[in-house]
Amino acid sequence: MKNYKLTLSYDGTRYRGWQKQGNTQNTIQQKLETALSRILEQPVDVNGSGRTDAGAHAKMQVASFRTASDMPPEEILKKLRAVLPEDIAALTLSAAPDRFHARLSCVGKTYLYRVYNSPVQNVFERKFVYHINEELDLDAMKSAAAVLLGTHDFSAFCSNKRMKKSAVRRVDEIRIECAGPSIEFFVSGNGFLYNMVRIIIGTLIDVGAHRLTAADVAAVLDSRCRENAGHTAPACGLFLYEVYY
Amino acid sequence: MKNYKLTLSYDGTRYRGWQKQGNTQNTIQQKLETALSRILEQPVDVNGSGRTDAGAHAKMQVASFRTASDMPPEEILKKLRAVLPEDIAALTLSAAPDRFHARLSCVGKTYLYRVYNSPVQNVFERKFVYHINEELDLDAMKSAAAVLLGTHDFSAFCSNKRMKKSAVRRVDEIRIECAGPSIEFFVSGNGFLYNMVRIIIGTLIDVGAHRLTAADVAAVLDSRCRENAGHTAPACGLFLYEVYY
Repeated sequence: MKNYKLTLSYDGTRYRGWQKQGNTQNTIQQKLETALSRILEQPVDVNGSGRTDAGAHAKMQVASFRTASDMPPEEILKKLRAVLPEDIAALTLSAAPDRFHARLSCVGKTYLYRVYNSPVQNVFERKFVYHINEELDLDAMKSAAAVLLGTHDFSAFCSNKRMKKSAVRRVDEIRIECAGPSIEFFVSGNGFLYNMVRIIIGTLIDVGAHRLTAADVAAVLDSRCRENAGHTAPACGLFLYEVYY
Repeated sequence: MKNYKLTLSYDGTRYRGWQKQGNTQNTIQQKLETALSRILEQPVDVNGSGRTDAGAHAKMQVASFRTASDMPPEEILKKLRAVLPEDIAALTLSAAPDRFHARLSCVGKTYLYRVYNSPVQNVFERKFVYHINEELDLDAMKSAAAVLLGTHDFSAFCSNKRMKKSAVRRVDEIRIECAGPSIEFFVSGNGFLYNMVRIIIGTLIDVGAHRLTAADVAAVLDSRCRENAGHTAPACGLFLYEVYY
């Protein structure tokens, strides 16, 4: 069996997320498995570096799959590009070491969250940003972001109430870049809970709008209680940006 | 009557162009007239600087309208933003001199045409670029563009065969900016014929792909015959970019 590493980008607007689900064809993973199984003429299981939410995007997602097929990778990639829908792009395909697994081998990720902060909507970017009309205090958001860095129990920033496993994660960086009305948040860490990035961003925006303070955010983190954190920012502004191995 | 100048941007993907048509609500002009007539509680005629094609966009379109209403412009603008669909944005609204007319006062325009030149589709920009897989010779395109500058009869670059009026126009600049896979063409002139920018771009791309030469383009221009020019580049890559008064 040959082992392959595939990199992808996708516009997640019309999908129910990465992860395949019993009764819908409408996930990225399902589209890839269907395409690869047809191209390689045998069933293919595709593993992603992790799930992405319904409506969230990927500038760079990494997936791996094994196949007994002898088809050269350049040919697989060419065929894949020809059959994938226009909102999923296969970027690269390369042979991977036998033990490589897109999810299990992953040691960290960066997510990008995009905000468009203006009284006027950006009509061209509207499906890829969170449009916020009210003024945001950038310095307050940066102070609050600093509170979240390091290793913590992030239960307060997780939507999954039935989570039994550890909610301890390490956030390495939250970089906030501002250019005109565009605010981009780059959140890097060793792993992320369900909705964690979107709740972090919603909370930072609540700080930026002075509904919460940086000190509140420290208390929220300590409380381990989702109800204390800010709102969940919408999926449309979220991009899986980089995956580390 | 007060006279107003309105600036707009729009994603034209789902519209049948700027110009209102008898039996469809689905034009930008119609959406604006409906919105303004409702807000000002009297019929409003909106004049654009010119038509844009079905599926083409505007980073900046200028329109003018007259009204007897005393509603302050800030209030009109706020209400307009609240009722316009999410793919049309009202940027600014200001009082204009009585003789100002968005089309008749216009002395020139710049169009932007965006090409994405790569074997891999850009999933996020796909509705706003012309995706071209084959390699393009930038220098050849620049030489051919130079041939078109100045005042000429552009009949060869016009889709309207029944055009009775003069096809003489002045093209002041065709600037080509290349950054990675992105190629942007900025075409400025005193006026443009039906499909003129899209035929110019299609012809330049045919030159870039070595299906035509710069010398061919001079002959095409002289021939005044549409059949000799290159293909019509798709509307999705075209943006009205600036309007001069």
